[in-house]
Amino acid sequence: MRLDRIHHVAYAVDDIDAALPVYTDRYGMSVEVRERLDDQGVEAVSLGAGTSHVELIQPIDPDGGVARFLSKRGPGLHHVAFEVDDLDAALAELRDSGAELIDDRPRRGLGGHMIAFIHPRAAGGVLTELVQAL
Amino acid sequence: MRLDRIHHVAYAVDDIDAALPVYTDRYGMSVEVRERLDDQGVEAVSLGAGTSHVELIQPIDPDGGVARFLSKRGPGLHHVAFEVDDLDAALAELRDSGAELIDDRPRRGLGGHMIAFIHPRAAGGVLTELVQAL
Repeated sequence: MRLDRIHHVAYAVDDIDAALPVYTDRYGMSVEVRERLDDQGVEAVSLGAGTSHVELIQPIDPDGGVARFLSKRGPGLHHVAFEVDDLDAALAELRDSGAELIDDRPRRGLGGHMIAFIHPRAAGGVLTELVQAL
Repeated sequence: MRLDRIHHVAYAVDDIDAALPVYTDRYGMSVEVRERLDDQGVEAVSLGAGTSHVELIQPIDPDGGVARFLSKRGPGLHHVAFEVDDLDAALAELRDSGAELIDDRPRRGLGGHMIAFIHPRAAGGVLTELVQAL
């Protein structure tokens, strides 16, 4: 397994529009893409933070994981995503190591990148995403 | 304010030695530096994740912030650090914008980089660190 870098961190927010100005005005991040991701139960926006990204994710499914996270913990750090060269190979390697995967195979994520989530139990308690960037 | 990239994410852990193998063996991260940081009340290890870093932080002060985080939330994502070119200028800009800073001026962080923490209230609920790398 070779991780290239941290691709993004994702922050759970109640309301993207209310949260955005802090990141754009105070920290100079730029809006890159904004999409509704039905399979993740969120609306999401990617912000450019130099060569990395910050994603703001707002639940659209009141029974989904992000809605549960917000009601339990409030707004904050939700997951971290590492970039890999070959997502299929990384998932195969993780599976062979006995790691518990949320996504058995890559799926389309924000901005069209291929992504897969790994269960926090397989990553030291941290919800972890792997990204194979476009 | 110009952020260069995400420098690291920090994971609060109960025991660095118990936590390490997941990151080194399963994810191929390499141990870069390990230090006791008395002013932060932690022992910390920096792991290379490609060109980014993951820090594991273990409380050494039972009344400190990381110990309180662990007892409230358990192990997991504690803060995110962005790299900047000029930390003094970034802090001045934040101060002028009315942002609440934890560190008014840069101090030495893990590995000798100069760092400063920004209060979560000034960063959308996320404990945020700025790093001017060596």
